[in-house]
Amino acid sequence: MSDPVEFYFEFSSPYGYFAAQKIDQIAADNGRTCIWKPFLLGAAFKKTGMAPLVQQPMRGEYALKDWQRLSRYMDVAWKMPAVFPVHTVAATRAFYWINERDPDQARLLAKSLFHAVFGEGQDISTPQAVAAIAAALFVDKDELLAALEDQNVKDKMRAETDKALEKGVFGSPYFIVDGEGFWGSDRLWMVKKWLQSGGW
Amino acid sequence: MSDPVEFYFEFSSPYGYFAAQKIDQIAADNGRTCIWKPFLLGAAFKKTGMAPLVQQPMRGEYALKDWQRLSRYMDVAWKMPAVFPVHTVAATRAFYWINERDPDQARLLAKSLFHAVFGEGQDISTPQAVAAIAAALFVDKDELLAALEDQNVKDKMRAETDKALEKGVFGSPYFIVDGEGFWGSDRLWMVKKWLQSGGW
Repeated sequence: MSDPVEFYFEFSSPYGYFAAQKIDQIAADNGRTCIWKPFLLGAAFKKTGMAPLVQQPMRGEYALKDWQRLSRYMDVAWKMPAVFPVHTVAATRAFYWINERDPDQARLLAKSLFHAVFGEGQDISTPQAVAAIAAALFVDKDELLAALEDQNVKDKMRAETDKALEKGVFGSPYFIVDGEGFWGSDRLWMVKKWLQSGGW
Repeated sequence: MSDPVEFYFEFSSPYGYFAAQKIDQIAADNGRTCIWKPFLLGAAFKKTGMAPLVQQPMRGEYALKDWQRLSRYMDVAWKMPAVFPVHTVAATRAFYWINERDPDQARLLAKSLFHAVFGEGQDISTPQAVAAIAAALFVDKDELLAALEDQNVKDKMRAETDKALEKGVFGSPYFIVDGEGFWGSDRLWMVKKWLQSGGW
């Protein structure tokens, strides 16, 4: 089997949420697996000089409308969280801690977290909130809370974010297929074409 | 017939160039005409705090690659101009001057200008360069050069840019269909669906 599709995203990214509904199927339809790689978009913003969309004049208002419109078109649950952007350090650390032993469970957690944030508008910024969501997947709450303060887990998340930036990832979602980068949920069609054709 | 599709773009915008290859057909397929509305993207950048893509770390490198990839996929001529971004005041004024008497000819001029910039990598920043391109469409060179300094023409271009910003246009390309805004050449698929369905 060819290399997996790499799916980079930030848990606070609405377009990452929308892409998360589609990318596994697109990869599978083309005989590929998909690796989920959350990272801290704030670290990329420091390099690019960007700010969260909702804080940008004109672009922010458009984005709020666009997310609603996209959710209706895709028939995906949508509720803008009251606290936004979301602080995602706990969520991202939790993902990588679980991912070390069980990538499938980590992906389930990512889907649950995304649904909580954008499907239900929850605040997932605290370790407690993340642990409550993980508990529904039979992750021990105390173990998880301890892991979120473990230096190895902190270092792992930092290293994954650094690796993403080194690969040129500057936004969420971002996909890498055989070394080729694609930015944005609007580019899923191109990811699909690239997978089908091997590039052009 | 329903209202025309409004197509807002900046002559220095590669994604505007790509959208220009498609939007008339999409409108026509849905029983609509399309109005072309160039504006000065720099005026929008002052409101949004954005900068030209090529000047943005990481995003600029991605964009350069993305334009080449898109041009190959769409089979559209592509040559990045040596001087970029392009100073487009002369081009935009010329468009509106011609548009007052002949919108079809103005659109032809827009297509010629876009092709010159991104199909051939020409510098169209000077009145002389714009006049040379317009001359191929039988526009009198001296008349055009005079018009580019005409206060009415200057005011018209400024007013069109102001009107675009008032409508929420902050990027290029930007489409308005029955009052609904869509940003980016990546959203042509959604413009199409919106036209077909009347919205959702």
